[in-house]
Amino acid sequence: MTSAKNYEFINSVLPQWLETSRLQTVHGSTAAYIPELAKAPQEALGIHIMCGNGEHVSAGDCGHVFTLQSISKVFTLILALMDHGEEAIFAKVGMEPTGDDFNSMLKLELVRPGIPFNPFINAGAITISSLIVGDGPEEKSARILEFFRRLAGSDTLDYNMDVYHSESETGHRNRSLAYFLLDNGVLGGSSVEDVLEVYFRHCAIEVTCADLARMGLILAFDGKDPLTGDTLIPRRYVQIAKTFMITCGMYNASGEFAIQAGLPAKSGVSGGILTLVPGQYGIGVVGPALNSKGNSIAGVHLLERLSQELDWSIF
Amino acid sequence: MTSAKNYEFINSVLPQWLETSRLQTVHGSTAAYIPELAKAPQEALGIHIMCGNGEHVSAGDCGHVFTLQSISKVFTLILALMDHGEEAIFAKVGMEPTGDDFNSMLKLELVRPGIPFNPFINAGAITISSLIVGDGPEEKSARILEFFRRLAGSDTLDYNMDVYHSESETGHRNRSLAYFLLDNGVLGGSSVEDVLEVYFRHCAIEVTCADLARMGLILAFDGKDPLTGDTLIPRRYVQIAKTFMITCGMYNASGEFAIQAGLPAKSGVSGGILTLVPGQYGIGVVGPALNSKGNSIAGVHLLERLSQELDWSIF
Amino acid sequence: MTSAKNYEFINSVLPQWLETSRLQTVHGSTAAYIPELAKAPQEALGIHIMCGNGEHVSAGDCGHVFTLQSISKVFTLILALMDHGEEAIFAKVGMEPTGDDFNSMLKLELVRPGIPFNPFINAGAITISSLIVGDGPEEKSARILEFFRRLAGSDTLDYNMDVYHSESETGHRNRSLAYFLLDNGVLGGSSVEDVLEVYFRHCAIEVTCADLARMGLILAFDGKDPLTGDTLIPRRYVQIAKTFMITCGMYNASGEFAIQAGLPAKSGVSGGILTLVPGQYGIGVVGPALNSKGNSIAGVHLLERLSQELDWSIF
Amino acid sequence: MTSAKNYEFINSVLPQWLETSRLQTVHGSTAAYIPELAKAPQEALGIHIMCGNGEHVSAGDCGHVFTLQSISKVFTLILALMDHGEEAIFAKVGMEPTGDDFNSMLKLELVRPGIPFNPFINAGAITISSLIVGDGPEEKSARILEFFRRLAGSDTLDYNMDVYHSESETGHRNRSLAYFLLDNGVLGGSSVEDVLEVYFRHCAIEVTCADLARMGLILAFDGKDPLTGDTLIPRRYVQIAKTFMITCGMYNASGEFAIQAGLPAKSGVSGGILTLVPGQYGIGVVGPALNSKGNSIAGVHLLERLSQELDWSIF
Repeated sequence: MTSAKNYEFINSVLPQWLETSRLQTVHGSTAAYIPELAKAPQEALGIHIMCGNGEHVSAGDCGHVFTLQSISKVFTLILALMDHGEEAIFAKVGMEPTGDDFNSMLKLELVRPGIPFNPFINAGAITISSLIVGDGPEEKSARILEFFRRLAGSDTLDYNMDVYHSESETGHRNRSLAYFLLDNGVLGGSSVEDVLEVYFRHCAIEVTCADLARMGLILAFDGKDPLTGDTLIPRRYVQIAKTFMITCGMYNASGEFAIQAGLPAKSGVSGGILTLVPGQYGIGVVGPALNSKGNSIAGVHLLERLSQELDWSIF
Repeated sequence: MTSAKNYEFINSVLPQWLETSRLQTVHGSTAAYIPELAKAPQEALGIHIMCGNGEHVSAGDCGHVFTLQSISKVFTLILALMDHGEEAIFAKVGMEPTGDDFNSMLKLELVRPGIPFNPFINAGAITISSLIVGDGPEEKSARILEFFRRLAGSDTLDYNMDVYHSESETGHRNRSLAYFLLDNGVLGGSSVEDVLEVYFRHCAIEVTCADLARMGLILAFDGKDPLTGDTLIPRRYVQIAKTFMITCGMYNASGEFAIQAGLPAKSGVSGGILTLVPGQYGIGVVGPALNSKGNSIAGVHLLERLSQELDWSIF
Repeated sequence: MTSAKNYEFINSVLPQWLETSRLQTVHGSTAAYIPELAKAPQEALGIHIMCGNGEHVSAGDCGHVFTLQSISKVFTLILALMDHGEEAIFAKVGMEPTGDDFNSMLKLELVRPGIPFNPFINAGAITISSLIVGDGPEEKSARILEFFRRLAGSDTLDYNMDVYHSESETGHRNRSLAYFLLDNGVLGGSSVEDVLEVYFRHCAIEVTCADLARMGLILAFDGKDPLTGDTLIPRRYVQIAKTFMITCGMYNASGEFAIQAGLPAKSGVSGGILTLVPGQYGIGVVGPALNSKGNSIAGVHLLERLSQELDWSIF
Repeated sequence: MTSAKNYEFINSVLPQWLETSRLQTVHGSTAAYIPELAKAPQEALGIHIMCGNGEHVSAGDCGHVFTLQSISKVFTLILALMDHGEEAIFAKVGMEPTGDDFNSMLKLELVRPGIPFNPFINAGAITISSLIVGDGPEEKSARILEFFRRLAGSDTLDYNMDVYHSESETGHRNRSLAYFLLDNGVLGGSSVEDVLEVYFRHCAIEVTCADLARMGLILAFDGKDPLTGDTLIPRRYVQIAKTFMITCGMYNASGEFAIQAGLPAKSGVSGGILTLVPGQYGIGVVGPALNSKGNSIAGVHLLERLSQELDWSIF
């Protein structure tokens, strides 16, 4: 099937497939640990698929606004790579999936050297936040927000300050991780609270499925925005990001998503998933009801079906 | 660069690049735990690259004969999938990378249900061995050998019985794993010694780089032998195998190899690496000196250079 | 209160206290993993307290016959110490409590050198079984049975062969532990099956509360049988055993029993507990309903009350 | 040997035995993680043994002044028990030894409920610090200091503020532990920095061997000061403290010390050890060179010899 035919086919089946996947939401539950996230509508499900020519198809609750949460880790990693290059980043963060929960501290204690195994577990993403260039947390955060706005092609992308404050006040497990990293010498000269301010802020940037799809489109076209022709990210850093999205992007269900969907993807506890079909589509999904691994239960269901029916797997 | 031009280029640079990578062997050491493996030449390095039209280029110690060891796990997984289908296999073995050593038992004890995280760690591969159809270990082993011979296009592929006996006599950590699996109800009705006989046997099948390249070529062409036109493996099972080769193929350095080379690959402690460039090449490498993660130190060096210079990464 | 007064007091209150503790049995359950153990009466509770002058008081289901299970570990440790001395034993088994489950393998993998942390976890007790002097499992087992008979003052102490066969056939987790130990070089020249035969046999020796009390009395009097005047165990080895009984005797509830009862004790999954009041009493208890840590729920309840009311704690 | 004869004997041999044990200091090293501790004299060794009648014998570097560090945990536990009673304390802190390093976080993550296993590992002692009654860290700290002064019979006991500031500035692993505890709901309403101020302060109280011996004497006489007749601690809380000193007092070498010396003891990374012979002696030892488990290498050597020669083991 050509890409154009694919597009037509998707357009025709998407609404119905989405409703089928929406039935999965009864088996999941919204993230309980932040009141702001717990309030999200349990049965919501939305998807937005954007082509290289700017056309798009969407279905379901695409108006739902949510925070990036862990999805932001893809782009802070890229910004840190653009700031420092590969060597400096991989001196502080490893490249291996862990098989453990995203906030686990086991391997920090058990495996020498005590650096985070990869940039997508919390310990790794906090380390990446400490590496963003900038004079203090405000400037670092401003650079991140500016970068995310450019990728999403939206000047209005901004923080949800309620979520930010909520996470900052209750994020003690992340503080625990950060002090462990500080003790292991991983955080450089930054203070824990400064690093966490940067971290909690980029997690609290608010988006829609369309924003995710637009950001994913940049990755699908190797860092070059197909709509403007601008190169926003060096291709090598897109390659690195996509690799991590396959090996570590869906928490400790990444291996299963790679087998079942075969697409680079990154999920967040808000129920968002950013994924892409290389050279074809950027895709944003949201479905706040999560499965036991912390991924949108209906979103995963819908993406696996799409990938299998349309033969999207990169493998 | 076209595939043909690539081929010429590879032909011209390979001997020199191989010698550069061979220098890495001083930093590695041969597998110590089996006398037969420890005897392998420390400084050996060979590579064989096979195209879809049957042409090939090779360099270095391609005459070196070695046992498949963990590389066999790719093909026993495929055979088990062909025997039982996905659902039955993934009821017994998971899909997630672990971040732990290949013979680790931590997650079997700590994570419910106590099934192996993936089919490439030892616990998973032993489970797969128990799932091969056949009446007793002889018949199972015969089916495996027959399948491997067909993939390698070689009727003479056979066991190195010295290595088999050596591993069978000293493989007590694998016995420990197998009894743990039996206790967790993962091994079905098979006895541990029967399962291990199958497992140790397929690990001890002897090959050259050319054999590996030939087997890799089948995977590079989605299960259809490009030289004969025969479909030897259903495409879906090749897809599954290639996905695991990216996420778990190089022990707990799989993530790094995915970032640095970006190719589906599987290594063994004999120093062998089987890899492939989808739609283009099957590749076999051998270099018995291993790095700290158990992969051929010079083989990894050479493959990463080739992939980076020739832009082979699938990402 | 003098010991004589204590004795009278115990005699008067014991039947009533036992009935009170028996009520706890509804909150426990018999060991499920061996059919023979699961068949034990859920609500049974018996106790036998023996003085240095041979008098005794008993209450409840003292006729209940049960297997020693882990209680045997106290006396195989002592026999191994008598066979080899401290230095040889502690080269193979450590002295530290673990905080982990009795059949855990975590520390064998994580902590160097990979020897068992103490002689009362399964890994340690299996190692001790391998160290008993004797030509093959039959002779080792015969020496153990003979030693246990001498301590219990009973020529008729013998195996429950049903339990032995049941454990031998299903004890795959112990086989897993034993092969791990073999791989770590801890088992010397013994084969796993030979070691496990010794281990399963001494676990399956059948006793009553009176037998336990008699064996405990020897420990209470520092190895010298107060009834015969015979020294059956060197005092130093009794000291070692009593120390382990405080730090590791009640699985990973040993710390709590030390705080609440303060007596050297060893429990088994058959619901037996052997304990002692130094210089005063040997005590045997049985109550097959176990709590979540694997100790007799009613037995622990009764012993804690006795110890608190009679001020038996050694601390 | 009577206590009086013991005393004479100790007096005669102590100087020579101390010099023999001092030779062990070459195999140890002072705590490296705090500059103030690292500066302590490597070869120092001192001991002070105090009798119930006020007589004492001492040898070696008894003038050496050092901070209590983990030794303080014995007495903050007792104060917290006096403040709240057993039930409230053991709702927040367990009773089990761990087998892990004193600053390990493994069991907090792996074992439900995520409360510290015992009050002597750092996680447990930090929890205990949070439970001391008082309006803010100053008042809590003042109550602790006042209690310690009363036990040591010294109005001049005070903080080493250099050590306090040094630990407070560099104690990020303890901050990590404290935030983990906060996240697990263990710290109640206290802020991490308030709790750590209390914790770091009592660790930095400065003593001599004579002070330790005086404090140990109170424990040796069940909470009643034998010199004044005043009851300073309820006997039950002394019993609890002594039990923990046996099972957890010497880090993850507690089991070994129980086997080899058999005395309730608590060590600190400053090289101090407080121990006691029930009904007879309070003992303070200092030797800053530590073994691999964090205990004074020469101090342990000397105490084991004394205990073995004088038959001090409580077992």
